[in-house]
Amino acid sequence: MPSIKDVAKKAGVSVTTVSRVLNNRGYISKETRRKVEQAMKEIDYTPNQIARALQRNQTYLLGVIVPDSNHPFFAELIKYIEMYAHEQNYKILICNSADNREKEEKYIAMLRENRVDGIIMCSHTLDIEEYKKVKLPIVSFDRIIAEDIPYVCSDNFRGGTLATEYLISKGCQRLLHISGPLDLDMLSNRRADAFKLTCMNHNIPFKIIECEFNKLTFDYYWQLINDKVSRELDHFDGVFCSNDMVAYALYVYAYQQGIKVPEQLKIIGYDFHSFTRMLQIPKLTTIKQPIDNIGKILCSTLIKMVTGPEEEMISNTIVDVELIEGDTA
Amino acid sequence: MPSIKDVAKKAGVSVTTVSRVLNNRGYISKETRRKVEQAMKEIDYTPNQIARALQRNQTYLLGVIVPDSNHPFFAELIKYIEMYAHEQNYKILICNSADNREKEEKYIAMLRENRVDGIIMCSHTLDIEEYKKVKLPIVSFDRIIAEDIPYVCSDNFRGGTLATEYLISKGCQRLLHISGPLDLDMLSNRRADAFKLTCMNHNIPFKIIECEFNKLTFDYYWQLINDKVSRELDHFDGVFCSNDMVAYALYVYAYQQGIKVPEQLKIIGYDFHSFTRMLQIPKLTTIKQPIDNIGKILCSTLIKMVTGPEEEMISNTIVDVELIEGDTA
Repeated sequence: MPSIKDVAKKAGVSVTTVSRVLNNRGYISKETRRKVEQAMKEIDYTPNQIARALQRNQTYLLGVIVPDSNHPFFAELIKYIEMYAHEQNYKILICNSADNREKEEKYIAMLRENRVDGIIMCSHTLDIEEYKKVKLPIVSFDRIIAEDIPYVCSDNFRGGTLATEYLISKGCQRLLHISGPLDLDMLSNRRADAFKLTCMNHNIPFKIIECEFNKLTFDYYWQLINDKVSRELDHFDGVFCSNDMVAYALYVYAYQQGIKVPEQLKIIGYDFHSFTRMLQIPKLTTIKQPIDNIGKILCSTLIKMVTGPEEEMISNTIVDVELIEGDTA
Repeated sequence: MPSIKDVAKKAGVSVTTVSRVLNNRGYISKETRRKVEQAMKEIDYTPNQIARALQRNQTYLLGVIVPDSNHPFFAELIKYIEMYAHEQNYKILICNSADNREKEEKYIAMLRENRVDGIIMCSHTLDIEEYKKVKLPIVSFDRIIAEDIPYVCSDNFRGGTLATEYLISKGCQRLLHISGPLDLDMLSNRRADAFKLTCMNHNIPFKIIECEFNKLTFDYYWQLINDKVSRELDHFDGVFCSNDMVAYALYVYAYQQGIKVPEQLKIIGYDFHSFTRMLQIPKLTTIKQPIDNIGKILCSTLIKMVTGPEEEMISNTIVDVELIEGDTA
């Protein structure tokens, strides 16, 4: 590819002059700028950002580690992260950890070798000590890793409260919650805490069934409904599901069994990602996480850590959630 | 970050020796290798792939330009591209063009500046001449750009034939096709060609309604069904939809209007991406594109162009499709 020297030669100016035009530094007459830009165009000069990255010690690359970039939640989150990163001139490298410890470690090593400016961490299989050793700016989604690693999450406690209160307001008298794995310290488990507390406040009998870790597929949820949830359905008239995919699996099961939703069984989900928005039969009653806003804040928080003064305190962000009324509760 | 010099000092060997260990070149005793690796670990040395990229003139970065990384087809394609790229030690940079000409141009410029090794092009808003000027290995999805730019696509003609033949075999006597925009030279338009030809061969009256370019959302398809397709439904008993999202929108419309599917109206889609696989009410009858395989071949074709000898002819690939029987036809 043509170099900056070739541009200088073509434009009949010095390399320093070309460099000034490129970096918008120092005085350059309009005429000189025009000549240099014309020369760049003619010889098809493209600045080498790799060389500049090495000089500046900044690559404008951000790593994004997710369990599965094809999961509707993460696909949507990635879209918004890319959009906001692009607006700030950053590029993103997508990494699919499959919630596998070894893969996550390898991706982190790869991102470090490629000198990314920072990492957005949406996969959480490693121990806290290992994240601390990364020595790069990290923002975490939905998990508290350490005091100096900010997190972004939706208001899981409020979401859990909204969902449970809604089921009770609709007349439910015995409630079931299908939660994520509660032994992991995930912020999404605040949904289960809120569920419990709200039931207790209203004197409502309740039960919680946990999903396993690292199981994010419809097929897994379908199995779970058949194996563990189905036998409970006689005893409960409302279910708060910790994500929309499990809520949909439960709806389909009820539909096939002739259990009327919402008359006999009320179902409320969590997420309202693109899958849920497209779904029309039924329109799920659910709690909306503002995925757009979460992506934006993950991005802006990380960029602030990359570019801001070191002593600046970077704060955690909890974004608000919203009840979406549908046909299932 | 610690440098190769720091490793040499710590291990008590020369920089050349460390370099040999890193590059697996020349004779190194087991003991020396152990010492060097130990030193790297102790001082937390991470090879600088940016510096190496500059030296080698290869970044192991691939650009992937899609209209919308959150569309279920592209989200799934990206997942597989990332998976296969990762296996070969390549990283991918995701670019969302929104099928916007200016954005696509800017992304291509960005990818060139970042010295990606090649581009997988799934967005096609530019003129053929502009792609030729890119001067980087390009593989295209679903569009013939030029003789030296290979493409990968599913067997659109066979898919269109399979879908149309199936509707006819189920007793349809008048057929409608909802196609992509036919004025663009997209390979997916072979579906419409096959539809026409099959109808003509069977003496079946038919009509085609085109979607607009750059409209890939459920909301757009819903509008299209209401504005243009609904008034045709009295005259047709089978519809071949060029994608599953429009097929689902049509099913929902029919359901709401009390039109029985498949008794009164048979619907067949195209794609069988994760949205369709999760969808249970109804299970769509559709044509499956093997997205996994498409991603794998896009990736391997591009890497072959990057690493192979220049004179090697890189061929186009057309992957097979499959009829998935569901509840709608």
